[in-house]
Amino acid sequence: MRIDILTVVPELLQSPLNESILKRAQQKGLVEIHIHNIRDYTFDKHRQVDDYPFGGEAGMVMKPEPIFRCVEALQAERSYDEIIYTSPDGVRYDQHEANRLSTLENIVILCGHYKGIDYRVREHLITREISIGDYVLTGGELAAAIIADSVIRIIPGAIGDEASALTDSFQDNLLAPPVYTRPAEFRGWRVPDVLLSGNFAEIDKWQEQQALERTERLRPDLLK
Amino acid sequence: MRIDILTVVPELLQSPLNESILKRAQQKGLVEIHIHNIRDYTFDKHRQVDDYPFGGEAGMVMKPEPIFRCVEALQAERSYDEIIYTSPDGVRYDQHEANRLSTLENIVILCGHYKGIDYRVREHLITREISIGDYVLTGGELAAAIIADSVIRIIPGAIGDEASALTDSFQDNLLAPPVYTRPAEFRGWRVPDVLLSGNFAEIDKWQEQQALERTERLRPDLLK
Repeated sequence: MRIDILTVVPELLQSPLNESILKRAQQKGLVEIHIHNIRDYTFDKHRQVDDYPFGGEAGMVMKPEPIFRCVEALQAERSYDEIIYTSPDGVRYDQHEANRLSTLENIVILCGHYKGIDYRVREHLITREISIGDYVLTGGELAAAIIADSVIRIIPGAIGDEASALTDSFQDNLLAPPVYTRPAEFRGWRVPDVLLSGNFAEIDKWQEQQALERTERLRPDLLK
Repeated sequence: MRIDILTVVPELLQSPLNESILKRAQQKGLVEIHIHNIRDYTFDKHRQVDDYPFGGEAGMVMKPEPIFRCVEALQAERSYDEIIYTSPDGVRYDQHEANRLSTLENIVILCGHYKGIDYRVREHLITREISIGDYVLTGGELAAAIIADSVIRIIPGAIGDEASALTDSFQDNLLAPPVYTRPAEFRGWRVPDVLLSGNFAEIDKWQEQQALERTERLRPDLLK
């Protein structure tokens, strides 16, 4: 899989995409991440990527030309399954969408910044608008990092222990059961006896019950 | 405001919290961000922060002792309004929660990693569990960065143009209207005439209509 991320602040994406599981996935050749500075696709001497909005609101708007140029330069090299824009009014991102994206070959993620991008980019270039949640961020960079992280970690081979990913929250529409590690007693708080019992049938049953009970209590919408 | 972030991979948080608006907010003294390596609160020679889960599932679980030690060392210095844990089964994060957190004095954000943290930490130390969305990430670090970013940008003075933040999506339960910048015509696609008219009463009306129409079409739930 190949992920191309377009941004006006590439520095911001350095550390989140180059540590831990994402770093290893790249080293193993499971995924290529390429970060592109949109400023490199400007032709004027000030390398201007934004301009005042028409209509006189506050904030700056990202210009269409450098974005089109950058995406089209990438499309000249290979075809892309999705050109994604991260925006609070996009489709709500969830684990199903992460699973879907993880099966694609090539995707572009365009990070908005300032007040947003010129709407013509969204109408004529973007194929998928994704919102990671109902909150506003400084820019789309963290949203792009979230998408990359959630997608890459489920590519087979990315995490050492695939069974662990399969028991994550949401993969079966249930929240995960509580987890405990040593010590068995800490400040007088004991781990539930069943987990220390060695009876794996009982442990499985307890974990299923806990997952169901927690989902019913905290997120009943997931059970519908 | 002061934000203390506890993590086992502090490297991951370097670039997202030290660029752009977040960097300036720290330079202006509006916010202090302190990143703590949980490993510094271990006493054994391997500096072990995780261990096998009781019950024999896959994945590793973060041990309770170093987390308690780190939080209690911070609490000895000042009192905290919230000890936040980022988890997919927490309360759904949104702009209202971002607004609320931005009014607090001191908060801790604990980043889970591996299979999660020992449940006793969640029962006895955490005061608020927050989910940034229905998807699973490698760790809570990106979620902590999202919370920090969304909270800091709305602290008065953090972004140059406060009027811009007030017209963001969600601040009035409406999605933002489309924005456009120069050129007025690009590849035959013209900016809507009203935005070029100079008639600010008409422009306001158009923007309100667009915001409402887009919200009705894309996110009718916000209007309830």
